[in-house]
Amino acid sequence: LKGFRDYLPEQMIARQRVLDIIRQVYERYGFMPLNTPALEYSDVLLGRYGEESDKQIYRFITKDEEDVALRFDLTVPLARVVEQYPDLPLPFKRYQLAEVWRVDKPDPGRFREFLQFDVDIVGSPSMLADAEIIAVMCEALDALNLRYQVRFSSRKILNTLAKWARVPDELVLPVFRVLDKMDRIGLEGVVQELTTGRVDASGDRIPGLGLGQEQVARIQHFLSLPRGSRQDVLSSLKTLFQGVEEAEEALRQMEELDGHLNTMEIPEEKARIDLGLARGLDYYTGPIYEGVLLDAPEFGSVIGGGRYDTLIRRGGSFIPATGASIGVDRLMSALEKIQGKAEKRSPARVLVTVMNPSFLTEYQKMARDLRNAGVPTELYVGPEKNIGKQIQYADQQGIPLVVIAGEEEFSQGVVSVKDLRAGRERSKEISDRRAWLKERAGQVSIPRPSLIPEILRLLKQWG
Amino acid sequence: LKGFRDYLPEQMIARQRVLDIIRQVYERYGFMPLNTPALEYSDVLLGRYGEESDKQIYRFITKDEEDVALRFDLTVPLARVVEQYPDLPLPFKRYQLAEVWRVDKPDPGRFREFLQFDVDIVGSPSMLADAEIIAVMCEALDALNLRYQVRFSSRKILNTLAKWARVPDELVLPVFRVLDKMDRIGLEGVVQELTTGRVDASGDRIPGLGLGQEQVARIQHFLSLPRGSRQDVLSSLKTLFQGVEEAEEALRQMEELDGHLNTMEIPEEKARIDLGLARGLDYYTGPIYEGVLLDAPEFGSVIGGGRYDTLIRRGGSFIPATGASIGVDRLMSALEKIQGKAEKRSPARVLVTVMNPSFLTEYQKMARDLRNAGVPTELYVGPEKNIGKQIQYADQQGIPLVVIAGEEEFSQGVVSVKDLRAGRERSKEISDRRAWLKERAGQVSIPRPSLIPEILRLLKQWG
Repeated sequence: LKGFRDYLPEQMIARQRVLDIIRQVYERYGFMPLNTPALEYSDVLLGRYGEESDKQIYRFITKDEEDVALRFDLTVPLARVVEQYPDLPLPFKRYQLAEVWRVDKPDPGRFREFLQFDVDIVGSPSMLADAEIIAVMCEALDALNLRYQVRFSSRKILNTLAKWARVPDELVLPVFRVLDKMDRIGLEGVVQELTTGRVDASGDRIPGLGLGQEQVARIQHFLSLPRGSRQDVLSSLKTLFQGVEEAEEALRQMEELDGHLNTMEIPEEKARIDLGLARGLDYYTGPIYEGVLLDAPEFGSVIGGGRYDTLIRRGGSFIPATGASIGVDRLMSALEKIQGKAEKRSPARVLVTVMNPSFLTEYQKMARDLRNAGVPTELYVGPEKNIGKQIQYADQQGIPLVVIAGEEEFSQGVVSVKDLRAGRERSKEISDRRAWLKERAGQVSIPRPSLIPEILRLLKQWG
Repeated sequence: LKGFRDYLPEQMIARQRVLDIIRQVYERYGFMPLNTPALEYSDVLLGRYGEESDKQIYRFITKDEEDVALRFDLTVPLARVVEQYPDLPLPFKRYQLAEVWRVDKPDPGRFREFLQFDVDIVGSPSMLADAEIIAVMCEALDALNLRYQVRFSSRKILNTLAKWARVPDELVLPVFRVLDKMDRIGLEGVVQELTTGRVDASGDRIPGLGLGQEQVARIQHFLSLPRGSRQDVLSSLKTLFQGVEEAEEALRQMEELDGHLNTMEIPEEKARIDLGLARGLDYYTGPIYEGVLLDAPEFGSVIGGGRYDTLIRRGGSFIPATGASIGVDRLMSALEKIQGKAEKRSPARVLVTVMNPSFLTEYQKMARDLRNAGVPTELYVGPEKNIGKQIQYADQQGIPLVVIAGEEEFSQGVVSVKDLRAGRERSKEISDRRAWLKERAGQVSIPRPSLIPEILRLLKQWG
């Protein structure tokens, strides 16, 4: 199905390792897991993300005439949960790992089903919460040993820009949505969409917002402000927005956030202010963030998020909230580029082969004993009788040790263990790997009673 | 949305613990993770499960005019994967954890979205594979410390029954589907559906299959065979089916399976033959299994599965396969009944409170240092200024330790740590828990430099 993918074991194993690490970091910050259904009533989702996003929602009518939609993100379902369970104590710090679905144009890097791993803090208006979100993102990427940069800005800064550039109220959100496309369509494309429109790669006409020259000039001026330290950028903004009423609150928040980041010892190179940042969804109201990997910038942001103080309502008043989302698929694609494709590596560390079916009972017992000793073990259950092919199977699955025993071994009270890792570095010189594995790969003969301790030792030896 | 549920943190934490344990067992048996999309082309799913199940598939047309369906189980998508990737080495032992969706009548114990945790072995016709599936199921339930019974039978036995009872070919699968309802509608209901039909609880007329008296008598005779050890049941079957051609192969398989179970030391009380078992899906061809919890039999089977040798096709020939699926939601409901509701227990072990905002920098540093020491820590970011309410919040979240420091503490170079676990057993005598927590719960004053080691000690002390 277009825009959908299978994750085969080699990819899944790499993905699970990454997810386990992220989950650990989220939990170290005290976030708690939540799960919501894949389907929601359509009216829960529609009208919360913005016009263009609404069009990307998978919506259908069930056999029971229910108007439903597939989860578009994890934020709006979180909002529904907070509204629906009034007893949920606040602040509510939750993480959620789940797939979301969007009817997007599928292309090699763009999918219609993707996995998001979100953290959010609901019930705190404080910049401390935003600082915690930025810190947890940094720590997750640190834990994955990645070089990254979290870039942040604020919808309040952009609102100030909109005022300063005299963008009419009804065009403010559309302007943000255009700015958000900077990465994809460049400054020229952005200017075209802000003014008279443009024709995209597939020949579709995208109408412009009709802004005037002076308005666009001001936006361009803002975008070209000199970059530098967080304090440098805040100083330029102070000068630029002098006298604009909205500026004060916007800048005060950013100063506060910067102060918290300093206390948490999050350095400039890990989290900087990026005035080019806008984010595409309508619900953001305060700080917004994105994270990019410095060794794979072409994948764009692998993390995104921001503050949304007017999305959640409880008994007539708004509940402030902020959070971020890791795009797991994009992160995994970027990781593959940085670290190379993961080698296939079965969880099994040992394959017990079936050399002679009349000893099946013995093979089963060996597998059982190994498993009981905590060694992930596969017992060969396939139809292949050829021992060379069974060994090749272990090699294909990334199982390092193979246990082999036939009539000869049993009569001598020993078992052979072949270590497929030995000589792996010489693999390229070997034209017939299967034959090589069978004849040459390091093999030791072990007295039957010592099998388990010897295998534990071999596994330990290689780490 | 009817038939859908949120999993709040207390449930999710319990669920994750269970899933982690199951995953560990699956990996110890050498199964590898796989993931497939939630949506498939409708024609991938339709016609593989049986008529009634087809009606339960969520199917819709996308904006791109694609005829798609939500995943109904994890077996058919697995079959598609094996067919689609001809290079996937066999046997392919995979596990998959994913939600499936069925338009079922929602009632308190029945949901339309549920989580399945499957293991399957593709590419082995051997009963050894079935024995491994039964063993991995037993081990998963053992690892969860549950009292259970895996019950198994075989479609080949049921086919033999059908021959013996002279059920016409086109009615064989419909008869199995009726037998599968035994748990829900009882023997009387089954007999009605096999013959003239019946009216169900909601007044709907369910047509009968029109079997004759002699046919039904034979089926009833089969169902009433004496129970006993696996060998006892096999002996009765041998006697009953004497002279029926199909019996030989069916019984030979069951004998073989029994032998493997004996070798693996899976005792009678953990895995027995149950001739009442039928399973509802059409694709089964060999052994079929179900697992029930002995302390919560009313939840029915929490595991189900079987062999399906004609579902997967690769280049013109069938690939044999067998597997089982844990119904995670039902398992969790049963666990809640057996072990009681899980207490809410945030991953955070410490809450750093904000007693005086002018020391915020200090609180942030404490939280940072605790996290760096590996202690899951929450920094209070909510708007509540009252320290009693902050402590109550920790209590509600199941956070055991609270760090408190105000002007007095900082001037003396100390920090207070309150242990909310102390006195918990006296909770019921305490009318105002918040006041009690604030005034009375065990509190110690710790020199600031000793905070981290002291917290590590306190956490260790309680385990």
